This record gives sequence, structure tokens and C-alpha cells, in this order.
Amino acid sequence: MKINILTLFPDMFSVFEHSIIGRARNSGILDITTTNIRDFSASKHKKVDDYPYGGGAGMVMSAQPVVECIKAVKQNNSGKVIFLGPRGKTFNQEVAKEISKLDEVIFVCGHYEGIDERAYKYFDLELSLGDFVLTGGEMAAIPIIDSICRLIPGVLSSEESFVEESFYSGLLEHPQYTRPEVFEDESVPSVLLSGHHENIRKWRRKMSLRITKERRPDLFQNVKLTKEDIKLLKEYEKNVD
Amino acid sequence: MKINILTLFPDMFSVFEHSIIGRARNSGILDITTTNIRDFSASKHKKVDDYPYGGGAGMVMSAQPVVECIKAVKQNNSGKVIFLGPRGKTFNQEVAKEISKLDEVIFVCGHYEGIDERAYKYFDLELSLGDFVLTGGEMAAIPIIDSICRLIPGVLSSEESFVEESFYSGLLEHPQYTRPEVFEDESVPSVLLSGHHENIRKWRRKMSLRITKERRPDLFQNVKLTKEDIKLLKEYEKNVD
Repeated sequence: MKINILTLFPDMFSVFEHSIIGRARNSGILDITTTNIRDFSASKHKKVDDYPYGGGAGMVMSAQPVVECIKAVKQNNSGKVIFLGPRGKTFNQEVAKEISKLDEVIFVCGHYEGIDERAYKYFDLELSLGDFVLTGGEMAAIPIIDSICRLIPGVLSSEESFVEESFYSGLLEHPQYTRPEVFEDESVPSVLLSGHHENIRKWRRKMSLRITKERRPDLFQNVKLTKEDIKLLKEYEKNVD
Repeated sequence: MKINILTLFPDMFSVFEHSIIGRARNSGILDITTTNIRDFSASKHKKVDDYPYGGGAGMVMSAQPVVECIKAVKQNNSGKVIFLGPRGKTFNQEVAKEISKLDEVIFVCGHYEGIDERAYKYFDLELSLGDFVLTGGEMAAIPIIDSICRLIPGVLSSEESFVEESFYSGLLEHPQYTRPEVFEDESVPSVLLSGHHENIRKWRRKMSLRITKERRPDLFQNVKLTKEDIKLLKEYEKNVD
């Protein structure tokens, strides 16, 4: 996947030089490039913001440098232009899957107290990270790009990619344990040491169900429970752990 | 605020050397330190993960290095220990406000396919960024720390901090415009050039209401509408813009 990131703070994206995303870039699976919006400012002092019409505190990002930057980047990237902003669709795993299928994408990071409304016609999609305020679009672009890229074939190693994960199945993860068998007087649950694959599978399913039911009733109500799930939950509710 | 971040990838947090957060660190308002969990591994090769008991793909982060690292950092930071993980409470502006009132906080970033359950008793709180999968807790810690820090007095300049923002008032932001008056044949709405403060306030409120109603009905239903709000919405619905 070819990703262009348009930002006033290109250095922030050195975060993608590390770990799994860094490895995928080094192996050529991911091509991530940043472009500094400021370089496209037509003003003498490379200004990118100005006071809002109608008054009010804060600065507004000017349309001109953003639009010129998008036009320039589009010459080498014909993908969707995605703006990170608070009025956008809330990002989730479904959105990550959709975007991960694309070959090329352009992300635009806003800053200051908003961006001139007339730049919006150059955006194909606006995405929001969640219901909280950030200092800039970069802070949303970082986890969103990470979440999308890890779904691209080859980015995760075969071992990393076959794991059942939260939000894939709509359930939160069951507890995990690794060596040693006893840590600070606490033992690994005996079922996990039993070697009985079917019991292990049932225990994990039961734990996922109860954790999701307790902590995220909003997710739980969308889970299509199987007959076995209902039985496992009843077992739990009878305290037959 | 004193923030300690426990991670396997300390270099990722160079993102906080820039922009608003970087400025606040330089001025001494924020003290952000990273500690490498790997340095606390008791194993010969500084191993921090191992295979899961009960089988399954992926590696699990061992409790020992995480717990030792927390114990060491707690000697200089008596704040809450917050773990970034998918089973946590979903982060939002309310949570950001609560945490921003604290003097000291410790963030712990998980990695791999989970962390040994026996480390959880050292966490005071688990936070999730949203309903999507990330390569590691660092990707959640970055926007969450950003969102918290910008609420700390002195981090934003006086000009930056007095702006009405989305999710403070429960409404999405109205459109913003800055110079020039005409950009690519599109003019700034005339009301914003009128100098009539009351009309400008009403127009902005009306735009916020309609944008929130259209794009985020889930937020809109929690807004306590004033008499004026109801009138402004009716005006819009009659297409009397």
C-alpha cells in the first residue's frame, strides 16, 4: 500500500520507523511518505493559518496550502483523500478493513482550531478517532494508519496474524498466561495446563463471553450467541467455573 | 504533570518532542519520561514474551518484566497505573478531563497478543482507544496522552485554549473560514463578514446543531436543546438558511 501523509509535522511520523510497521516498510510492503503542507503556502513567510472570519479565538488553517499540497501529491497517488477531523465518521475495525483493501491512500492532518471549510471538497472521507479533542490530526493519523496497515497481507508475520483478536469476533479477549506456572503465588488456571484442547477452547470462550458481558454490554448485545454460548454463560452464572 | 511511559519502544514517543506537547515539555509544564520494559527482564537474553499456556498462535507478554518495571517506576511516581488494552474503558473527553487533574500518572503499553493476566493486579485502570486492533499499546498511548496533556493549564496558549471545541459542548464544530474572502470561486458566507455578532453566534450555533444532527445522531440525542436551539433547527428545516 502506498500512503501519503500531508502534515505540518512530518517528523512526528518517525513513529512508523519502529516495530511492525517499520519492518513492513523496510521489506517494501508499505510505502509511507510525508509531505509538509507548509511547503505549499503561497505566502511570503510560508504562513498556513489566519484569523477566523466572524471573529472568535484560535487560528484557522488556510485552504490554499492544503489544497495545493493535495493537488501535488495526487500526481503520484490516485487514492482516496482522507481528512482526520472531529466531524468525521468514528473509526472502527470495519473502517480499517475497508481501507486496508485499497492500493493507495492520502491522509490529511488538520491543525489549529479547524480548517477553512472550502478545503473540504478535496476530501473524499473524514474520519474521527473518537469523542475527544486532540492537538492535531497527526495524533489520530498515527493509530488509524497503524490499525489499517496491520491488516495488509504480509505486514504481520504468519504467527502474529492468525490470532483471534478483540473486535474481530465482536468479543473481548480471554485472559492469557505464559511462563512461569506460578507468578507471585498465583498459578495458571489448571485447564490451560491440561492439554485438553476442547476444554481449553470452551474455557476461553466462556471467559471472553463473561468479560464482554461485564465490561462492554454495548458490544455484547450485538453478539449472536450460539447454543453453546448460552450454556457456557449459564455455567458461569451458576458459578460453576 | 509527571508522566512515565512503560514501553518496549521508547523511541516511538519522540512524537512528543514536537508541536504543542513539545513546547510544554520545554517550558517545564510536562515531564514525560519513557522506561524500557525490556531492561527489567530477568532472563539472560532480556526476553519479554513467551508462548501462551493452553496453546494458540501469537506470543504473550510475560508478567515479570512488566511488574518489575512498574515497581521501579513507582519509586519516583506515585500516580495511577493505566494500562492501554482492548478490554479497557473506552477513552473519551470525560476520561481525559479526569486524568488531566492528576499530578502523576504511569502508562503501561502492552504488545504482542496480550499480557499475562497476573500482571493486571498492578494496573489501576485499563483504557481502550476504540473498537479497533492496534499493533501495540503505544499507538493508543500517543493520542490519549496528547488529549490529556492539552487540558493541563498552561499547555495550550491563551489563544488556543479559549476555543469552543467539539465534544466539550456535545456538539460538532461549525464551519470555519479564513482569508481570502473568495477561494476557488467560493465566498465566505456573508453573515461572517457582517460584523453582526449576534447573527454570527446564531449562524454558528445553527450550523453546529445541523451538522451534529446529520452526522452524529448518537451525540445529538444527548444534547439539551434550548428554546433558541429548537427555533434555529426549525429555521434550517424550513430551508431558511
